[in-house]
Amino acid sequence: MPQGQVTTVPQDGMTTRQRRNRPLLVVHTGAMKGKSTAAFGMALRGWNQGWSIGVFQFVKSAKWKVGEEEAFRALGKVHDETGQGGAVEWHKMGSGWSWSRRAGTESDHAADAVEGWAEIRRRIENQAHEVYVLDEFTYPLKWGWIDVAEVVSVLTAREGRQHVIITGRDAPPELIEAADLVMETTKIKHPMDAGQKGQRGIEW
Amino acid sequence: MPQGQVTTVPQDGMTTRQRRNRPLLVVHTGAMKGKSTAAFGMALRGWNQGWSIGVFQFVKSAKWKVGEEEAFRALGKVHDETGQGGAVEWHKMGSGWSWSRRAGTESDHAADAVEGWAEIRRRIENQAHEVYVLDEFTYPLKWGWIDVAEVVSVLTAREGRQHVIITGRDAPPELIEAADLVMETTKIKHPMDAGQKGQRGIEW
Repeated sequence: MPQGQVTTVPQDGMTTRQRRNRPLLVVHTGAMKGKSTAAFGMALRGWNQGWSIGVFQFVKSAKWKVGEEEAFRALGKVHDETGQGGAVEWHKMGSGWSWSRRAGTESDHAADAVEGWAEIRRRIENQAHEVYVLDEFTYPLKWGWIDVAEVVSVLTAREGRQHVIITGRDAPPELIEAADLVMETTKIKHPMDAGQKGQRGIEW
Repeated sequence: MPQGQVTTVPQDGMTTRQRRNRPLLVVHTGAMKGKSTAAFGMALRGWNQGWSIGVFQFVKSAKWKVGEEEAFRALGKVHDETGQGGAVEWHKMGSGWSWSRRAGTESDHAADAVEGWAEIRRRIENQAHEVYVLDEFTYPLKWGWIDVAEVVSVLTAREGRQHVIITGRDAPPELIEAADLVMETTKIKHPMDAGQKGQRGIEW
């Protein structure tokens, strides 16, 4: 519930309405699971606003599939067929992005990641979506495949109403600095500690 | 990704398969927002498994609506019409639960909460759902409207494959103790700190 109290009023020359609707850069980071789950939960709210959702998963395998993918694909279909909610695009790096004519190699992840970011940059510059989920995007940043300064520059200069949600461990400090909202999910108690293994419907 | 390493093998007489499929009691607690968002994100995965989802929101107003409600109702409709995913029921305490013939008063929240829990208890005993989201359920526990010991007893004795996800601040210690997985989302940086107000599509 929106019950938070504003603690300071910034001297940024914006009206409350402008400030209220300022698009956010959100980072879900930290060592625990739940980062992507929380990001997709946020995207659900955007879908309900009729916003166009673009998900870009920087994962190594195209076979990797989380339950959220099917759910969002179903919601995208609801939009296409009935007009309810927003449009949904879901892209995975895996063995080559779906928009790319280049056959994926499953070997040159660095090149795939660079290509993914180039496309996201184009879309942001064209204001293609209202919600971007860049899932596991911190890894190509961490490994130096994609230039952090360029990412921060593109994200901070983005126009219109484009919310960007980035997930992954070890978000670089420059990204944290640029973000409006940084969340970390902390484990207090986890079944893995008690010998529980990952299970369908819960972990993926 | 299910990459967690099991650190200990418990002496509980269960096989790995049994342990893998053990239904979980999950608590999302802590002072920050994001608890419900994360819970609904988990429920998305359950929906994709074809599991029956029952959401019970212990909120004061029936008018209060988060984006997830519309999204899950749409997913429930997808299930009803195409068979994809799981069935979805979404109930709010507000001015009386939808199954109740008693007109809600918006004044006797304690009685409403007790009635809500009685219904959830019946459903758990009848194995009505495979995923229960008891949203904001910690509050009636905290305020003493519902007996914590009874809740823990019903939850720990539940049979079959019933995952239960509970959200809310100040989860009672007995509930934390009984839970398999307790998650807390920590704010590192939040726009409210910078005078940002809650906004549609993000906060609800």
